Amino acid sequence: MAAWARAVRGLLLDVSGVLYDSGGDGGVPIAGSVEAVRRIKASGLKLRFCTNETQATREKFVKKLQGMGFDISVAEVTAPAPAACRILKERSLRPHLLVHNDLVPEFAEIDKANPNCIVIGDAAENFTYANLNEAFRVLIGMEKPVLISLGRGRYYKETDGLKLDVGAYMKALEYACDVQAEVVGKPAKMFFESALAEMGVPPQQAIMIGDDIVNDVGGAQRCGMRALQVRTGKYRPCDENHPHVKPDAYVNNLAEAVDIILQQL
Amino acid sequence: MAAWARAVRGLLLDVSGVLYDSGGDGGVPIAGSVEAVRRIKASGLKLRFCTNETQATREKFVKKLQGMGFDISVAEVTAPAPAACRILKERSLRPHLLVHNDLVPEFAEIDKANPNCIVIGDAAENFTYANLNEAFRVLIGMEKPVLISLGRGRYYKETDGLKLDVGAYMKALEYACDVQAEVVGKPAKMFFESALAEMGVPPQQAIMIGDDIVNDVGGAQRCGMRALQVRTGKYRPCDENHPHVKPDAYVNNLAEAVDIILQQL
Repeated sequence: MAAWARAVRGLLLDVSGVLYDSGGDGGVPIAGSVEAVRRIKASGLKLRFCTNETQATREKFVKKLQGMGFDISVAEVTAPAPAACRILKERSLRPHLLVHNDLVPEFAEIDKANPNCIVIGDAAENFTYANLNEAFRVLIGMEKPVLISLGRGRYYKETDGLKLDVGAYMKALEYACDVQAEVVGKPAKMFFESALAEMGVPPQQAIMIGDDIVNDVGGAQRCGMRALQVRTGKYRPCDENHPHVKPDAYVNNLAEAVDIILQQL
Repeated sequence: MAAWARAVRGLLLDVSGVLYDSGGDGGVPIAGSVEAVRRIKASGLKLRFCTNETQATREKFVKKLQGMGFDISVAEVTAPAPAACRILKERSLRPHLLVHNDLVPEFAEIDKANPNCIVIGDAAENFTYANLNEAFRVLIGMEKPVLISLGRGRYYKETDGLKLDVGAYMKALEYACDVQAEVVGKPAKMFFESALAEMGVPPQQAIMIGDDIVNDVGGAQRCGMRALQVRTGKYRPCDENHPHVKPDAYVNNLAEAVDIILQQL
């Protein structure tokens, strides 16, 4: 019946819009998702949470999810900030940060004096006119401008409505300085590959489950994985007519995906 | 000697960065520019001020320039907001405005109820996180999103430093909603053509003088005009190596351009 669900050894789950809907109040779990994560773990499948979340440290993010009842630990999360820190160290880059206040501790060990690159994340309320002008001035003042973006999402859904994501602000700086950002996080191939390596599962035996047709589904498929789009979170019916990306399947929510996958084991 | 300066009947002048440097304090005239405008008018050349300024109504903008000593009137100014109003009326578009407070009166006669397009200008301090999210939500909620941008400048210089211009925020909304903005103002061909028509001078007999290599120089040249870049305002030495646009000449400032042009009359 569901050919796409066969021969699976590992699952990668996007978090916001799949496990829960975020919001100013912290967010609410999506019906059936807490139980679905428990069932995946009980099944023996490998599991990795693969998120572009950059509004908080992984510690704080995981604590919030645990508070909603999810069985999740920091060690199971692949997120952009630690990946960016590895790149900064390797290339001796000293960032000017345009990120959420709660993400700053992830960069505690990074030298930030006399910056020679910009790191932009989903800064939310920190995306002020003054902060954007400041990041722009630092970037255009560099001999060789380097812009590192924690994801390239267009928008996401919070309980009080859609919000512009980091990708929109990345585009603004790219255009103003005539540079191309280096994206860390989904849909970057290297990001998915490190999540697969952490699970020890080859792409052919892994399924990505997300609500973002481009960053979750398209990105995972380009790495050789199967990918499902859930009809929760930022999903919109017009995603099903996307000109370039076609998921291996649509599911109403994570619980339905897990039902089908576990039936095939 | 200066072949580019021959057979001229009309001049189009960019304003910010050519006549004056803008700033929170209102701005300061660029040395020699007040006198240069007087000399153009005394020479009998046709003259048009061609600006992408959208931080104020033309009335207020002209008053500021008059206060600095410039001989200028509202009737001599070609600016994006009135051009946008013509388009809105022709196409029965009702805008949600993301513009500077001081520009709002230019849209006084336009129906803004139940918006079916976004008009974005250089909103400056109005480019808040909340206002950008609101414009985004209105735009993505439209069946057929229409984004009208008053210019596509990347940045400009104020007395306290470089600032992101409307083009950067236009790109953010374009990317988030997967739409292409319609640009009103420089470098749109129609905008230069209406300035030429208002002067009654064909492009072959007109020279554009500006500090923006792409929007002033490139835009005017694409209309068949000659174009000079001044080394004032947002001019940067690297502009002289621009990959696509080569001005007919560089001049140190407006006064020098006028010296050379008047010698050829």
